Amino acid sequence: MSPFPAVDAFRGRDGVTRVVGHRGARGILPENTMMGFVFAMSTGAYLLEFDVVLTADEVPVITHNHRLHAPTFRDGAGNFLKDEPKVSDVTWEQLQRFDVGRVDVSSAYGRRFPDQARVDGLRVPRLVELLDCVNQPLFDAAHLMLEIKSDPEFAHDQACRKELVSRVVAEVRAAGMQDRTLLHSFDWNLLAECQDQAPEFPTSFLTQLPDNDDEVGEDSSKSISPDFSGREHQIPSLVAKAGGSLWCPYVNDVTAETVANAHKLGLVVAVWTVNEREDIDRMIDFGVDAIVSDYPSRVQGRLETRGISWL
Amino acid sequence: MSPFPAVDAFRGRDGVTRVVGHRGARGILPENTMMGFVFAMSTGAYLLEFDVVLTADEVPVITHNHRLHAPTFRDGAGNFLKDEPKVSDVTWEQLQRFDVGRVDVSSAYGRRFPDQARVDGLRVPRLVELLDCVNQPLFDAAHLMLEIKSDPEFAHDQACRKELVSRVVAEVRAAGMQDRTLLHSFDWNLLAECQDQAPEFPTSFLTQLPDNDDEVGEDSSKSISPDFSGREHQIPSLVAKAGGSLWCPYVNDVTAETVANAHKLGLVVAVWTVNEREDIDRMIDFGVDAIVSDYPSRVQGRLETRGISWL
Repeated sequence: MSPFPAVDAFRGRDGVTRVVGHRGARGILPENTMMGFVFAMSTGAYLLEFDVVLTADEVPVITHNHRLHAPTFRDGAGNFLKDEPKVSDVTWEQLQRFDVGRVDVSSAYGRRFPDQARVDGLRVPRLVELLDCVNQPLFDAAHLMLEIKSDPEFAHDQACRKELVSRVVAEVRAAGMQDRTLLHSFDWNLLAECQDQAPEFPTSFLTQLPDNDDEVGEDSSKSISPDFSGREHQIPSLVAKAGGSLWCPYVNDVTAETVANAHKLGLVVAVWTVNEREDIDRMIDFGVDAIVSDYPSRVQGRLETRGISWL
Repeated sequence: MSPFPAVDAFRGRDGVTRVVGHRGARGILPENTMMGFVFAMSTGAYLLEFDVVLTADEVPVITHNHRLHAPTFRDGAGNFLKDEPKVSDVTWEQLQRFDVGRVDVSSAYGRRFPDQARVDGLRVPRLVELLDCVNQPLFDAAHLMLEIKSDPEFAHDQACRKELVSRVVAEVRAAGMQDRTLLHSFDWNLLAECQDQAPEFPTSFLTQLPDNDDEVGEDSSKSISPDFSGREHQIPSLVAKAGGSLWCPYVNDVTAETVANAHKLGLVVAVWTVNEREDIDRMIDFGVDAIVSDYPSRVQGRLETRGISWL
């Protein structure tokens, strides 16, 4: 048991491995959209991972990159963007003009998701839309893995960091979702700020070893992560020392040993982004607590085959 | 142009290949459920294929097999069935006790759909539920490929056949959906009965050559289909002579030549069940009118890559 109720929703045990819908269910529906979140929960994936950034008018919105991501943002004429303005340079109202209901199938990013549906007219949601949604009794089981994205340009600006955390935390508190939300980031300075400003929230530490490539078409996390060179094996203890409740390593970075070490330190281990059947099976074998996937139903299917529950 | 408006919704042309959601979107959500149908339409797959059978009290219901299909039907205790009672032996009310929201992942049938979601509490829908749903303005674009399933035990019983057609047609007429519905079957005698009783509906002729295996875990169509041995190349002309508007061959049975022949005869060619990327691409190359798939978004993605529309 953790002092934070949200952590236990992500903790596995004998016969239970958790399933986390990555950006909703990115393999099936457009990422970081209300439709994707509702679909994930409607199919039993009540643990939702998603990404929060501030607009120019400081509205927390749910989108992955600091810039409007060209392969997923279309303008009013229906064309995918050529330039990528920064989210922090557009207002919430301006952001609503863009359609995020399709991925560009001709892009390297789009080719990764051949089964993703297209739904014209989807907009970038505000964080409060998702909070209001999961506050409905239907979604009582929902818990949020709320990733706060640090803009590499401002990662060392303490005032920026304070403002970002303050805006996000204020909305989660206003919705009364403190006991159902993890604050999740690659930026350990930002997570320290979360612990300082909002000690009632558990913190969740994302890591990726520098040797592994970034995922195709994604923003790199490396510029805002600590440098783990030479300390790869110490990561779980570094997370524990930093006051983390969860350790969230990249799928290709974990071994049965690192998972066991993290468990000895009392950490919950949630691995991202696990999409292929062989990887899913390997993570189950390693005894991870939670599997973060673009295909939550596929993970459930593998668990069901082995008699393991996710609830 | 066909005298039947519904036929044109399934007809391709230069730059347009149609996408038909097979039993909703069986690859993603439980087959022949309202949730699956709504999902398919919400993702732009407005052409729906599904299967109709009569209960003991002669209610047209949407389910594929004549018997409650053990890998998809669970009893009140949540266990997959061991015996398979006939749909025609249970009343509509009795049928509502079974849950069809999961596929048994341990069955040969279930292993074919590793990404299918699980949604407890789904029930076999009545035909009228789907008709009412697509009658909403939101789904104005919807058209129905309504497969009438002939029970092999009664396929030669003319009174049974008349009653089956009469019940189904009455509901479609009552919903005013004549111009948006195809009557679709493997049983050519039944299709003749449809033409006789309901000449305002186009008929759609399913075929499968005897040399190709049945799909794993499916009811065989062969017992109620005509025997095409020695006449394989004449099938399109046999369909045209029988008054069919659509020819619906099995994916492994068609060639560019048979598609071209069918087109010369004025037939619309809708191929089933096309799930693999290579098969989808081959069907596009062959110039078929419509692709029936368990993964309609995947087919849309392949079409989009080639600049082809489906609407």
